[in-house]
Amino acid sequence: MPMRLDASSASFARDFQTLLAMKREVSEDVDAAVKAIIEDVVARGDAALIDYTRRFDRLELTPATLRVTEAEVDAALAQCDPDAVAALRLARERIEAYHARQKPADERFVDALGVELGHRWTAVEAAGLYVPGGTASYPSSVLMNAVPARVAGVPRIVMAVPSPGGELNPLVLAAARIAGVSEIYRVGGAQAIAALAYGTATIAPVAKIVGPGNAYVAAAKRRVFGQVGIDMIAGPSEVVVIADDHANPDWIAADLLAQAEHDTAAQSILVTDSPALADAVEAAVARRLTTLPRADIAAASWRDYGAVIVLPDLASCAPLVDRLAPEHLEIETRDPEALAAGIRNAGSIFLGAHTPEAIGDYVAGPNHVLPTARSARFSSGLGVLDFMKRSSILKCGPEALRALGPAAIALGRAEGLEAHARSVAVRLNLG
Amino acid sequence: MPMRLDASSASFARDFQTLLAMKREVSEDVDAAVKAIIEDVVARGDAALIDYTRRFDRLELTPATLRVTEAEVDAALAQCDPDAVAALRLARERIEAYHARQKPADERFVDALGVELGHRWTAVEAAGLYVPGGTASYPSSVLMNAVPARVAGVPRIVMAVPSPGGELNPLVLAAARIAGVSEIYRVGGAQAIAALAYGTATIAPVAKIVGPGNAYVAAAKRRVFGQVGIDMIAGPSEVVVIADDHANPDWIAADLLAQAEHDTAAQSILVTDSPALADAVEAAVARRLTTLPRADIAAASWRDYGAVIVLPDLASCAPLVDRLAPEHLEIETRDPEALAAGIRNAGSIFLGAHTPEAIGDYVAGPNHVLPTARSARFSSGLGVLDFMKRSSILKCGPEALRALGPAAIALGRAEGLEAHARSVAVRLNLG
Repeated sequence: MPMRLDASSASFARDFQTLLAMKREVSEDVDAAVKAIIEDVVARGDAALIDYTRRFDRLELTPATLRVTEAEVDAALAQCDPDAVAALRLARERIEAYHARQKPADERFVDALGVELGHRWTAVEAAGLYVPGGTASYPSSVLMNAVPARVAGVPRIVMAVPSPGGELNPLVLAAARIAGVSEIYRVGGAQAIAALAYGTATIAPVAKIVGPGNAYVAAAKRRVFGQVGIDMIAGPSEVVVIADDHANPDWIAADLLAQAEHDTAAQSILVTDSPALADAVEAAVARRLTTLPRADIAAASWRDYGAVIVLPDLASCAPLVDRLAPEHLEIETRDPEALAAGIRNAGSIFLGAHTPEAIGDYVAGPNHVLPTARSARFSSGLGVLDFMKRSSILKCGPEALRALGPAAIALGRAEGLEAHARSVAVRLNLG
Repeated sequence: MPMRLDASSASFARDFQTLLAMKREVSEDVDAAVKAIIEDVVARGDAALIDYTRRFDRLELTPATLRVTEAEVDAALAQCDPDAVAALRLARERIEAYHARQKPADERFVDALGVELGHRWTAVEAAGLYVPGGTASYPSSVLMNAVPARVAGVPRIVMAVPSPGGELNPLVLAAARIAGVSEIYRVGGAQAIAALAYGTATIAPVAKIVGPGNAYVAAAKRRVFGQVGIDMIAGPSEVVVIADDHANPDWIAADLLAQAEHDTAAQSILVTDSPALADAVEAAVARRLTTLPRADIAAASWRDYGAVIVLPDLASCAPLVDRLAPEHLEIETRDPEALAAGIRNAGSIFLGAHTPEAIGDYVAGPNHVLPTARSARFSSGLGVLDFMKRSSILKCGPEALRALGPAAIALGRAEGLEAHARSVAVRLNLG
């Protein structure tokens, strides 16, 4: 049974704090191992990649077979279920259309003093996309990571995916083709992150690395940050569903389980003002679990990390939701817009009864790479801006410099930086 | 003498690689010490802050004196040079005006299938601003970090600044007042970062931490990343000046030295197609050094990390500049706009002879917190977006879900996530 929190209970504040403090991930201390792997890839390049791939993926590679060929991708695409491929194409189109609106505008303007200012956005030269192997190898994630990079105008998109025992998910290769990935390498783990960051003879380095991975991949991304840019460090997925007595408990139960089936460490939380709905949802979850293929995973997640929070009224839920800062927030109430307006921290907001979170995982258009583990307090889902950077632009003529220069000279001197002051003064014949 | 690289020399490619690979910072391995400090602050809160402040800053604090009072800020402001305060006020106005244009727009739209999509930007709840103590305590940096947070709408801006021996730079306190900082604490180092990230009884935690610092501060920011958001890890400052024979060698020399006086690890690079200009600039640098207060620092930086790159023509400089990816790029040529258009990687671009970099450090308006150490390949200067995050918004009615649902069901099943598929199917009466 999930945790039940009742706002009318004396222990509510403490219970909520317990919920917030729940550690859903054992943070494995793999940092020393990762440091050694990165240093080895920097020193030995392809030879190190080949050694680690033999050891971790039981696969014998050469520099020539590190890269997945176009013919292999053709073959993979040919063996995929056509319905799934068609769904991927629809998803790609919709993701592209949604993200195209995120493309930022350049700007130039002249201010009242005659100073010309502005900024310019440019795409990174190359982006690396990490895709986990095995069961967590999701074609939809390939689209969600690669399409924004394409929309940003990144000329080179490089995918790294481990192939344990030589196996690659054909639909992942199909998604890479559909998304416009430029190069695919069959390497994984910290060694793949090191190769993307520092380059080897076969893999040219990239400027930005995105994509989820296990503890080794996460530790490697944290280590190479600075050498390259990285996206967030992804944790287990989570959903908060806010529902009133108007909601269909069976639909809510289905949504809570869609989250829970990801991972035993996933988290599904129901927030409601209706104890009756809470009971009905719990019953529906139990019923649905009996026929779910991944029932073991979903049941463990719901039992260990699930929660049902009953409040006297939903108008007061915003501060609680903001502290949870959920990756996904579903609002299934009479007036979802009004509730949403009061909430600050959420990765993605799903409004109304006909917007199950799963629609956003695949085909709605917005990104499904979203901030987990309460990081929606300070970060956003993946988007076009993650693959671009902004250069500011400044241009003074003699008049503008004469207007602004004295203040710059005063501040340079106040900070003890005389050479700063002189670089302005010399242009104004002030010495 | 700085390194001289000549593109017509056989060793040019190797020399340029040497320049790129130059390590300008000894990366002190302080991570174990920082880990212990953070854990101690998490465990003991204010008591740990007080202990570390006694040890590192030779200052005896109590929970009541951790915070700098409004009266102390008033007194600091009263003792500052009025010209410097006036210059800070001008700078704040101009920084505010420039950054106001970065405020992103929310969006809502309905697509052809009737799906309502969009996104919403919100400010982080609280931002922490780290300000170094001692000689690197720059009032201009307080403005550059705090003003974008204000413009973003951050309701609570918290500054942490060490006060070695009890000393605080009055102009730093004045800048905090002018910039609208909400709370100031006299703590520094890894302990300050830990307090901002995790909170203590006296200091409520923030969601995002920005600002430069020493190796301890940098290591602490890297460690708390995930608990809070952080800005970039700042390295020594750098400038690349592109100039042709049209440029004034004395002005260029002044600019190279303005960069070099920051730090012995700062880097100033001249790129030119004119060997005569290169010689004249080197001579002017030597001349200017004789009268510079920080001549020791500037001379060491210019000698150890300075470089003069002579190319046959400037039209070919873009790929080299992109690999250097300088924090600051000055272009002092006949047609600076044309050159700038071809360059991808630069934190801030200064166009023309009357735009010395120092004008951007203080009063032009754009941010002076810019990507160092080649990170302009993948990151941007500090801005309003660093203090905001985007929530995506999705809303389907029954019709829209009917149109999109089948593709989501197909992809859910293709990924082995049956509960995902069912959460859509149950709403379409498909099971």
